[in-house]
Amino acid sequence: VSERVPPERFGLRPVAARHVRELESLLGPAAVISEPDRLEAFAGDETEKLRFLPDVAVLPASVEEVAAVLRLAARELLPVVPRAAGTGLSGGALPVCGGIVLAVDRLDRVRAIDERDLVAEAEAGVVLADLQQAVEARGLFYPPDPASRETCRIGGNLAEDSAGPRSCKYGSTRRWVLGVEAVLADGSRLVAGGRSRKDATGYNLTQLLVGSEGTLAVIVAATLRLIAKPKATLTAVLPFPTLAAAAGAVERLFVEGLDPAACELAERAALDAVARLEPLPPALAASAALLVVELDGDDGEELLARAERLDALARSLGGGEALVADDAAGQRRLWQVRRRIGEAVKSLSVYKEADTVVPRSRLVELIEAARAAAARQGLTALLYGHAGDGNLHVNLLQGELADSEWERRRDAAEEELFRAVVALGGRITGEHGIGWTQRHLLPMALSEREIALQREIKRAFDPKGILNPGKIFPG
Amino acid sequence: VSERVPPERFGLRPVAARHVRELESLLGPAAVISEPDRLEAFAGDETEKLRFLPDVAVLPASVEEVAAVLRLAARELLPVVPRAAGTGLSGGALPVCGGIVLAVDRLDRVRAIDERDLVAEAEAGVVLADLQQAVEARGLFYPPDPASRETCRIGGNLAEDSAGPRSCKYGSTRRWVLGVEAVLADGSRLVAGGRSRKDATGYNLTQLLVGSEGTLAVIVAATLRLIAKPKATLTAVLPFPTLAAAAGAVERLFVEGLDPAACELAERAALDAVARLEPLPPALAASAALLVVELDGDDGEELLARAERLDALARSLGGGEALVADDAAGQRRLWQVRRRIGEAVKSLSVYKEADTVVPRSRLVELIEAARAAAARQGLTALLYGHAGDGNLHVNLLQGELADSEWERRRDAAEEELFRAVVALGGRITGEHGIGWTQRHLLPMALSEREIALQREIKRAFDPKGILNPGKIFPG
Repeated sequence: VSERVPPERFGLRPVAARHVRELESLLGPAAVISEPDRLEAFAGDETEKLRFLPDVAVLPASVEEVAAVLRLAARELLPVVPRAAGTGLSGGALPVCGGIVLAVDRLDRVRAIDERDLVAEAEAGVVLADLQQAVEARGLFYPPDPASRETCRIGGNLAEDSAGPRSCKYGSTRRWVLGVEAVLADGSRLVAGGRSRKDATGYNLTQLLVGSEGTLAVIVAATLRLIAKPKATLTAVLPFPTLAAAAGAVERLFVEGLDPAACELAERAALDAVARLEPLPPALAASAALLVVELDGDDGEELLARAERLDALARSLGGGEALVADDAAGQRRLWQVRRRIGEAVKSLSVYKEADTVVPRSRLVELIEAARAAAARQGLTALLYGHAGDGNLHVNLLQGELADSEWERRRDAAEEELFRAVVALGGRITGEHGIGWTQRHLLPMALSEREIALQREIKRAFDPKGILNPGKIFPG
Repeated sequence: VSERVPPERFGLRPVAARHVRELESLLGPAAVISEPDRLEAFAGDETEKLRFLPDVAVLPASVEEVAAVLRLAARELLPVVPRAAGTGLSGGALPVCGGIVLAVDRLDRVRAIDERDLVAEAEAGVVLADLQQAVEARGLFYPPDPASRETCRIGGNLAEDSAGPRSCKYGSTRRWVLGVEAVLADGSRLVAGGRSRKDATGYNLTQLLVGSEGTLAVIVAATLRLIAKPKATLTAVLPFPTLAAAAGAVERLFVEGLDPAACELAERAALDAVARLEPLPPALAASAALLVVELDGDDGEELLARAERLDALARSLGGGEALVADDAAGQRRLWQVRRRIGEAVKSLSVYKEADTVVPRSRLVELIEAARAAAARQGLTALLYGHAGDGNLHVNLLQGELADSEWERRRDAAEEELFRAVVALGGRITGEHGIGWTQRHLLPMALSEREIALQREIKRAFDPKGILNPGKIFPG
């Protein structure tokens, strides 16, 4: 457990015993957790090894209970850290100054799946996979697919604007959010947007709240756009002799109108890491890198025709024979190589993942920059991710280095890497958010004036600064 | 010309002769217009008959010149009204308290069309049709297609989040904006987003500025996402025996996965208005309403197969034989019926257009409510529009009524209509914006607290309130 930032640093106060009693009287004692050993479960997320113990965790079961917690916190100047499943990768859910963790687990109702309006209304605590299963059982489709989809919750997806492989065709979570219901820092209720598919009524607060990392309001429910589920999918794995050839092929898929639903890249070192967990298909043994491409549509024949164009394109760029599957089991096997990389990297070494994103045409340069930055510090960089969006996860590995040496080299490599990313017209996070761990990098991406403006927006929503203090903003 | 609101009402001041001289010294005299007769061109937009004369109009030729104008205005507390092509339908560009009209006409450079990154970078003054032509010449596609596309400009498209028929598949302008460059009220420069296709770096100011109607910042350029141009399109006109049957068919197209690129509705009265301008195809003579459906894709055969499914679906819902065209000339002829409605309505009578939008499943109820609200005031309502988005333009006609009587009845009908829209889960504007003419209706759509929050956001960007005063907010 890390040392907390004193809440006074943010103009806030620690939670006292009387606050816990008041929370118990508001929500019932079962919904309020204050025993240190039970609080452990609310101390961390999936970000490195960081853990901060909150003073108390609450599990409101209704929007009104969320509002009651916020009214108390606003009156008493207590930090409130909204938490969904805790699968975040930038520390957005870490209670860095203690305070109240507000967990949305019990706001877990799918309020509606409407086949006529093609929308789902889901509360913040609904698990993404559960929602998708319910939606797909009706022949409908909600595309966002972050790696954590089996456990992550809708509230967290909105807070971080989660994305995944399919965002290269379908966009990140934000593109699917028609409306949100949220509770403001003063406990009042905000409803933005709704089931209408167009809305020009004042500022679009829906789109502002998506990606705001729990710093502007507590999202309690969302209206999500659905589409008819594509009737067919096809997966192709394309091996390439060099990483640059694989990366260079990516932009061509889009220019040629092959319209991939996913376009993922993995380099040799990532494949080798997976090979320690399970044998790879022999056809992949010799390739320096591969692309996993998914196509979807309503006509299986058309997908096969597109797969042939894909194969021809890859070969014209130096690629080897594509592995193609259009049955469910075969596709699962091909995806497995890509899906196990995260786990495989974790099993190799302590690591730090940089969520780089650049314009697609700069992918090759990004890879060169990442390797150079790592090499300069004597570190290994392992690259994979959502190449179709120009979004690569650069994993720096600790290996055998002592902690202090690792931290020094890691920070230096990361800084060099992100400077290169910005110089390539990229952004310092594509889908993980700024949260806690990237906030010191914000001045690389935004000017002083732009950061000041973002702080003013924060103040407009949360003048006392009780919501998720310490996140996004540096210093 | 209408009577202006005194700028002092907004805490601002009128433009004095010395300000005009300073503007002339900043931009050169040719870029500063202050003769009353030449100012006429900046007094109105396409909103009813409203006209307000500005004190001065400026035509900056660079971002730096925009910044210089704003610095002067901020220092001297002068109103600044950003203006693109003046094709808006809610009075967003009206200089209601005089001041400086800042026209972006000369910021008209397409900075880049990049086939590798699939983006266009266009300045605010670029005419949409010019951009689309340049993009399509390279086999690429920028979908937003407001009715004004031949003359409207990118800056206005972003300010109002313009949409059109194709938004039912492709979404409104906002879905295509990856980044914006803007000048803030204090003259400083804001760059949000860029060519990267994902971005989780702080609050998404790109999406906040889109649709903010010139009240938060002056957008000077945008980075727009492009896709490969669909290789084939097909247009079908589906006649129905009742308006309700046509409206009821709309939701089914989406549920069945027919994925229309456009789905427009027109009722008999709208067709009759068009028939006064040109003969209609005989097959449409007897229908009470029709849908114009466009399909697009890469495979003409597949479109024909989809058109057959579309025809079968329409017939199963009581529709008559579909008119189908997949050649350019034939499609143009079919679209002509829909495209001339706006002009045809104008030629009938003075009218007021209500930009209603409801969840798709409520379209039939919307139509009933619109007819009832009009009938209760003895007015004719003529309905048409973007049914695929649940977005209908309800045109109330003045006919032979005296002005004062017309205004009374129009306002009463409009209020009843919008109350019904909100009760149906709809919004008081789908794509025209709140601007000047809808601001009194905002309290129907947003709570007092929500309006107060929106005002705080405005203050965060523009603490002196110099940007487009009087717009969006009531009172």
